[in-house]
Amino acid sequence: MAGSATAPLAVAVTKAGGLGQIGSANDLQALDGHLTSAAKDLQRTSEDLLPIGVGFLLFLADVEEAMGVIGRHRPAVIWLFAAKEVGDYATWAARVRRVSPGSMVWVQVGSVKDALRVGKEAEPDVLVVQGADAGGHGLARSAGLVTVLPEVRDALVEAGLGGVMVVGSGGVTDGRGVAAALSLGADGVVMGTRFLAASETNLHPNWKAEVVSTSDGGQKTVKSMLFDELKGPSIWPEGYDGRGLANASSGDFDRGIGIDEVRKLFAEASQEKDGGFGQDGKGRAAMWAGTGVGLVKKEQTAAEIVEEVRAGAQKALEDARARL
Amino acid sequence: MAGSATAPLAVAVTKAGGLGQIGSANDLQALDGHLTSAAKDLQRTSEDLLPIGVGFLLFLADVEEAMGVIGRHRPAVIWLFAAKEVGDYATWAARVRRVSPGSMVWVQVGSVKDALRVGKEAEPDVLVVQGADAGGHGLARSAGLVTVLPEVRDALVEAGLGGVMVVGSGGVTDGRGVAAALSLGADGVVMGTRFLAASETNLHPNWKAEVVSTSDGGQKTVKSMLFDELKGPSIWPEGYDGRGLANASSGDFDRGIGIDEVRKLFAEASQEKDGGFGQDGKGRAAMWAGTGVGLVKKEQTAAEIVEEVRAGAQKALEDARARL
Repeated sequence: MAGSATAPLAVAVTKAGGLGQIGSANDLQALDGHLTSAAKDLQRTSEDLLPIGVGFLLFLADVEEAMGVIGRHRPAVIWLFAAKEVGDYATWAARVRRVSPGSMVWVQVGSVKDALRVGKEAEPDVLVVQGADAGGHGLARSAGLVTVLPEVRDALVEAGLGGVMVVGSGGVTDGRGVAAALSLGADGVVMGTRFLAASETNLHPNWKAEVVSTSDGGQKTVKSMLFDELKGPSIWPEGYDGRGLANASSGDFDRGIGIDEVRKLFAEASQEKDGGFGQDGKGRAAMWAGTGVGLVKKEQTAAEIVEEVRAGAQKALEDARARL
Repeated sequence: MAGSATAPLAVAVTKAGGLGQIGSANDLQALDGHLTSAAKDLQRTSEDLLPIGVGFLLFLADVEEAMGVIGRHRPAVIWLFAAKEVGDYATWAARVRRVSPGSMVWVQVGSVKDALRVGKEAEPDVLVVQGADAGGHGLARSAGLVTVLPEVRDALVEAGLGGVMVVGSGGVTDGRGVAAALSLGADGVVMGTRFLAASETNLHPNWKAEVVSTSDGGQKTVKSMLFDELKGPSIWPEGYDGRGLANASSGDFDRGIGIDEVRKLFAEASQEKDGGFGQDGKGRAAMWAGTGVGLVKKEQTAAEIVEEVRAGAQKALEDARARL
């Protein structure tokens, strides 16, 4: 949620008893400002860790600059994702631990193989295991949480890495999803798509409206490399794609219209008043969203979401027990 | 699991306290034999329903012949899937109810839209909601259980169809998956991939061995239309594909080798001693399996599986409660 999950959302989630996170920050000067603002809002005293997380896309971020910001602000969580080489996570993890002792290192993975390698080499505090239902970027070849979560958990235990915590990501949209992830062996969850429609999220109003109005998330989103190709060749490392709302760009591409024409139509739409964020599936800009989008029915404050999800998880486990 | 889930597996699952099912039967004479054999094994008295289910692929099955077999044997469950037109489910459901009163009608769907339409028109007892992790055939555009299950459940309730039971399918491989599905709002689950390695399943031994040895299910399976194209153009209705173990055929196709060449290599491999069921990903025949294949670690009897899954579900819910 780069650019949309900024300080106001992160602070609101943390205040509500969750752990707010700032989406992958490539503009490190902007991140610095967000963290200063978050520290003030959270009335932080200088010795404490800042009780929010910050995400970094490793293939994009400058490690030196990143360490500067991390050392200055000491966020509670540093969430690493999308390294060009799996080995890069270990390098980053070691440096984070030096510049900000106490910060937890989270690494996001999407396969058992990567989980084992990262678990051994980077010794993260947390592996964020991402399933195929996630919005935005993830492994093109992937599985849903229902299988990848328990398989990663078992593999870690078998490899003597059972102490690494596992956080489920991808499709968790309400309390039922939380209960499911915990049942599958997760120690916790992260949620993105649900917060797309949070009042504190910085998103084009049409994108937010589209998230609220879209039903049937598996049918109305597409997992594709196309959305990264709209502005020109994708800058993402091999093996990744991204899930977003199906729209005029993806529809044209699926119908066999060439990428050059799809790019041209996108560029034209970007000049329109709505910036290409047309509604009812008619937009041409990428609007990242997971399959959980069909479960997001209204705009709510982050506090309302956190409270509703917590209560819902409790109820879902009770209901499940009653059904068993 | 057409051809592999036959009477011995169905009987064993039912005897263990589950509800055994015979995979989609297009050879109705063979099905007649299987049902006669199952009735004998289950010491059925003539008035009772036969306590197993039978699947039908509606685009393939002859409705007249199917009704003859259903009326003669009265299986407890008739599971309908893959109609050419969504409207066909209502026709079949009504006829099943006439020829075998008391049999439950299950209809398998993969989207909220289809769930609502089938729920209204066919009035099934059960909607089998299939997620993208399933092995074998399903909707090409799909979502994992973590989102499609709760979204279908909510949509049914909102449409006044809350009385329709929902059974989760796709990725449920052990007790944790069962607990997750129940948490997501399912009344029950069906499991396919886990039973591929059951002793009673009629599967090429190499396929069974491959299921047991494969790890990282999301990486080592592919959801593709290719497997239906190996013997010639697919006979499946539009919108479906199938998930199977990644192998030499899918690898070649992904590398851009044309379908004619892939078919030729498959045809040649089929003449080999192993019938194209090569191991370690080197086979060329379709070996259907879901992403849960990485959780299947040994061959077990159906009774062992049912018992282990039941106990595991209980434990998973307790563990989840402790973590919340």
